[in-house]
Amino acid sequence: MAIEQEEKATEVEKVIEVENCEVDVGVRRRRKEEESTEEAVPASVEREFDGKKVPTWREQLTLRALAVSLVLAVLFNVIVMKFVLTTGVVPSLNVAAGLLGFFLLRLWTTALARVGLLRHHFTRQENTVIQTCVVAASGIAFSGGFGSYLFAMSDTIAQQTTVANDSQNIKNPKLGWMIGFLFVVSFLGLFSVVALRKIMIIDFKLTYPSGTATAHLINSFHTPQGAKLAKKQVKTLVKLFVFSFLWGFFQWFYTAGDDCGFIQFPSLGLKAQQNMFYFDFSASYVGVGMICPYLVNISVLLGGILSWGIMWPLIGNKEGDWYPANLPSKSLNGLQGYRVFIAIALVLGDGLYNFSKVFIKILVVFTSQLRKRNSATTLPFSDDTSSPDASSSSFDDRRRTELFLKDQIPKPIAFGGYLSIAAVSAATLPHIFPPLKWYYVAVCYVFAPVMAFCNAYGNGLTDWSLASNYGKLAIFTIGAWAGGSHGGVIAGLAACGVMMNVVSTASDLMQDFKTGYLTLASPRSMFISQVIGTAMGCVIAPSVFWVFLKAFKDLGVQGTEYSDPNALVFRNMAILGVEGFSALPKNCLALCYVFFAAAMAINLLRDVAGKRVARFIPLPMAMAIPFYLGSYFAIDMCVGSLILFIWERINKAQADAFGPAVASGLICGDGIWTLPQSFLALAKVKPPICMKFLSRSVNQQVDNFMATLS
Amino acid sequence: MAIEQEEKATEVEKVIEVENCEVDVGVRRRRKEEESTEEAVPASVEREFDGKKVPTWREQLTLRALAVSLVLAVLFNVIVMKFVLTTGVVPSLNVAAGLLGFFLLRLWTTALARVGLLRHHFTRQENTVIQTCVVAASGIAFSGGFGSYLFAMSDTIAQQTTVANDSQNIKNPKLGWMIGFLFVVSFLGLFSVVALRKIMIIDFKLTYPSGTATAHLINSFHTPQGAKLAKKQVKTLVKLFVFSFLWGFFQWFYTAGDDCGFIQFPSLGLKAQQNMFYFDFSASYVGVGMICPYLVNISVLLGGILSWGIMWPLIGNKEGDWYPANLPSKSLNGLQGYRVFIAIALVLGDGLYNFSKVFIKILVVFTSQLRKRNSATTLPFSDDTSSPDASSSSFDDRRRTELFLKDQIPKPIAFGGYLSIAAVSAATLPHIFPPLKWYYVAVCYVFAPVMAFCNAYGNGLTDWSLASNYGKLAIFTIGAWAGGSHGGVIAGLAACGVMMNVVSTASDLMQDFKTGYLTLASPRSMFISQVIGTAMGCVIAPSVFWVFLKAFKDLGVQGTEYSDPNALVFRNMAILGVEGFSALPKNCLALCYVFFAAAMAINLLRDVAGKRVARFIPLPMAMAIPFYLGSYFAIDMCVGSLILFIWERINKAQADAFGPAVASGLICGDGIWTLPQSFLALAKVKPPICMKFLSRSVNQQVDNFMATLS
Repeated sequence: MAIEQEEKATEVEKVIEVENCEVDVGVRRRRKEEESTEEAVPASVEREFDGKKVPTWREQLTLRALAVSLVLAVLFNVIVMKFVLTTGVVPSLNVAAGLLGFFLLRLWTTALARVGLLRHHFTRQENTVIQTCVVAASGIAFSGGFGSYLFAMSDTIAQQTTVANDSQNIKNPKLGWMIGFLFVVSFLGLFSVVALRKIMIIDFKLTYPSGTATAHLINSFHTPQGAKLAKKQVKTLVKLFVFSFLWGFFQWFYTAGDDCGFIQFPSLGLKAQQNMFYFDFSASYVGVGMICPYLVNISVLLGGILSWGIMWPLIGNKEGDWYPANLPSKSLNGLQGYRVFIAIALVLGDGLYNFSKVFIKILVVFTSQLRKRNSATTLPFSDDTSSPDASSSSFDDRRRTELFLKDQIPKPIAFGGYLSIAAVSAATLPHIFPPLKWYYVAVCYVFAPVMAFCNAYGNGLTDWSLASNYGKLAIFTIGAWAGGSHGGVIAGLAACGVMMNVVSTASDLMQDFKTGYLTLASPRSMFISQVIGTAMGCVIAPSVFWVFLKAFKDLGVQGTEYSDPNALVFRNMAILGVEGFSALPKNCLALCYVFFAAAMAINLLRDVAGKRVARFIPLPMAMAIPFYLGSYFAIDMCVGSLILFIWERINKAQADAFGPAVASGLICGDGIWTLPQSFLALAKVKPPICMKFLSRSVNQQVDNFMATLS
Repeated sequence: MAIEQEEKATEVEKVIEVENCEVDVGVRRRRKEEESTEEAVPASVEREFDGKKVPTWREQLTLRALAVSLVLAVLFNVIVMKFVLTTGVVPSLNVAAGLLGFFLLRLWTTALARVGLLRHHFTRQENTVIQTCVVAASGIAFSGGFGSYLFAMSDTIAQQTTVANDSQNIKNPKLGWMIGFLFVVSFLGLFSVVALRKIMIIDFKLTYPSGTATAHLINSFHTPQGAKLAKKQVKTLVKLFVFSFLWGFFQWFYTAGDDCGFIQFPSLGLKAQQNMFYFDFSASYVGVGMICPYLVNISVLLGGILSWGIMWPLIGNKEGDWYPANLPSKSLNGLQGYRVFIAIALVLGDGLYNFSKVFIKILVVFTSQLRKRNSATTLPFSDDTSSPDASSSSFDDRRRTELFLKDQIPKPIAFGGYLSIAAVSAATLPHIFPPLKWYYVAVCYVFAPVMAFCNAYGNGLTDWSLASNYGKLAIFTIGAWAGGSHGGVIAGLAACGVMMNVVSTASDLMQDFKTGYLTLASPRSMFISQVIGTAMGCVIAPSVFWVFLKAFKDLGVQGTEYSDPNALVFRNMAILGVEGFSALPKNCLALCYVFFAAAMAINLLRDVAGKRVARFIPLPMAMAIPFYLGSYFAIDMCVGSLILFIWERINKAQADAFGPAVASGLICGDGIWTLPQSFLALAKVKPPICMKFLSRSVNQQVDNFMATLS
């Protein structure tokens, strides 16, 4: 998935990037697999595969692989979209994509082999192509901004803010312009860094933990032992998938009204329910909790307790003093303002700290590596095909490097591609977003390659993508430049989209090159697969979003199931950039400063404290999510953690091998259920029953009322 | 448990006796254990125990064993009472009693041994004493008639019928007379057959499958291997116990009103809910389903579909034609009449068929055995201590016979005891129930020993106790003799109690003698333990019932949780005996004849068809229960079946070893939860939340109404 390659954790636990509310949980789990794979696999992976001929790059890009990719791209777009629109917490779906890709193509080849029509065996390079394509396609569901900058432009979100909601600061989503926009911005990232792949992968030997883990997963599938385990894992995944899908279906029947159904179950009591503490029976988030590191889950819960348990009730007591009484409950001038802006402060504080940290790290390591490399008298951008010092490298390294350097992507294509797409983009974007002048775009594209390089490099080093931080930078700079009276909000949000897409696809591509390097897939097939995947995503993601938008009429309204919470956060950041702090309620700014500083301080504390202590210090980013959402999904995630914890106690090996499959099954089944759910909504089929929760006294009154009905 | 020794199945699947709605499910499960035990155990069980000294009968009756028995007696009285009062389907709790008895005393001795105070080791004879005592005590909860004849006398039940509800046909439960009544009728059974133990156990070598299975269980606990398995089983039981208890507790919070909570969950839709098809989330009945043979569960479900799915809706269409419209929904003149009387017809048809079958079998086998024995020139009632033909018997048989004949119960005690208790009983009972004249009681006690012998013999032969059939015989004969205008209903029901108690305790005792024979427990300690257990039961059972009665105000009202459904059935049988068929609604009698005949025909079909076909023919008795109760508990039970079925598919050995423990845990936890639940009700602590289920249209109206509230 492109998703989790967006933002990666420096330490194993530090894996949450909350501006996009993306929980990049794959890291820890995948690292585990990597370890276990490396135990099982002999010292040299490539000797194991020595007998097998490596297919040419054209043979790797088979039609069947692309067909499977298309199916999975739709599947994962739906799933990611569901997460983006409900809480913004997107789990890593890498294991799920890997298992399902392997499963579907294995099914295909086995079926063909049975009727004697199989001409080419299923190779691991094909598997890599699928993975790359699916990751690229479903990445658009995230970087397309449906849960952030793009939907933040809409009327629905604007109405929930108080300033800058005039018509020039509003752009409602339409299928046409969304697809167009994505097409002109999503390919730039690929061309911006493709020329750098040799220096990143071979010379600097960057680790790209997620890409490496994916490669190990794919390699393991294609050893006999690995295939056997994968088969079992797929079986587990499918079982949980079916369960989770049916559970979603079952829940549907009881949601006849707004406050009906399991998502309203006051499992911790009615009082706790009112403060958003309840278990909402979501199989997805239980799955997410199983993939997430314990610290993330606990941090989210702590954040929920701190905000909804302590702070909001206290601030709520100041109603009429700090802020006017009797405001609509979701007005940003009231309690909701504190919720959103304090969360933004936390997120920005954490983001800034980590941005600086990664940047300094990049500078230090990069200059030392560049010095080393320069002493070897080759230029960073040269396309030289000379192998690095052969004597010092292992058989695996030599074989991989040889194949990695075989298929080149011509330099003119890379540079020409970038320049021509940038030109098209600068010419088209102002037509889509009038406030976004062509020179804003041009400025973005001047800085973009540098940032793309930084992000791809940082990602390789730390596994943490900072794409949304670069996006926020664009919001504030371009937004302020344009100014509120000239549609600065739209300009800022659109610039954020431009920047995020370039930067995130660049690091995605480099991750995939690493995966390709380790599975002997050709860089050329990787690149083309990524281009195809991106193109798929540019069509599929807006279409899926379109279905959600039409099916759930109150999409984007805070407090509903599909509340798209980060869209509001992004719009408010844009407003902050344009209008300053004038709109904040009393004392809110002071609180924001405190939390901004606290986020920095906690991060610093995590870095200076030893690892032993650090693993008990919560993550400010993770703590910020429940500030405006409530704790219900934190409780789901903690249930997932608990299940995994108990499972690990009972049978550690089994939990390690099948935990990710179980989690993926839970996530995918519930995610895919949203597809029929939205079709039912589109067809105006309404659920028949309402499961309602009433306090005893209200129930008494309702019973009396119902007696008068019949 | 005395419970399942009351009524035993001729074939493995035929284990349900529906008049008392008692599902005697232990049979199949225990037989399985028996098989597996016999595989594991060496050819001679007693050689295994050869080194261990057999304690004297006084040493077997330890104080600690009786203390443990008291604890378990209370526990199982609560559990059995819950079943008796909710559906009348009482599962076999033998395995639970065995495991818990072993566990508690092992805990005790281990604790004492650790502090160096243990003087006597825990012996299997002590274990047998506990089992016997607990079975006797909790048997009273069933044979005491709280869910049948005794509560059928009450005002609550009488008001739900239309005739014979004058004051002389009503006797409301009071703690005093209930305890008195039980004391004067419950001991007769013991004395009536004690003299026959040698002829039954040693000469006729009757099998008593349940008693044998219990003995095997106890023997296995006291081998090192068995103790290990038992420990694991206890662990499983306790885990499920805690889960089931907490689940019951959790459910409680959502039951603020009458139609609230999980027991009202329309899991199959609102329409199905109205026709009593729903899963009511009861851990107990899922557990019962796991113990019950598949055929029982399927039969119950089929009965539910036939009645609530087909017949009642059809008959409901005749409202205003077959029966007056606008009657209260539970009036016996309306649809409820068809439900109750057709069920009675099915039950009586099945009962009569099996009564005749077992009776004929007894006659055939008994006469042939008697002829054989007479040729050996010993009289059936002689107390001779001569061992039977030693040369033809195994080491086990010789050792067991030797110990079985060592401790005698003097004949004068047996006969004297019977006569004096009968005299006391005949003198006291008319004071408790004025319509029950002393000569009715005397007549009962003349026939009782013969019937007790028949039942104990039949039970040994077929594992099926017909106690409640003898009880029904008394209802009809004594009731008709007394006549409606002289309190015939009360007389009939009281006579039923007298007869049932004698007959059922007699077969219990003989079962226990068999268990004692196989575990080298002394008949004398068995007898005394049974007497003590019965005395415990006579106090505990009415007290537990009293708590339920005080805690749940609508106990006995049809359609509530504690509806005590069989009380109504029993009262209606008594009315039928006294008044004839005059009260039945139109066409009901014809339908009753059809179902009476069908029950006989289906049973005949099951007997003439081969075993292969018979296992697909449903059991009429089992089918009758949902006729008046609805299918909800059938669905619970089928869920239990399904769980067991899947488990057996995955790991048969594990399912066989731990299935009964899981089921017992589920049953006991939920059962025991009723104790705090009733205390909460007594303390007037009410649950805070109502989980309500409304159709979409009603929900709309309720939402509008609630908007006016705030």
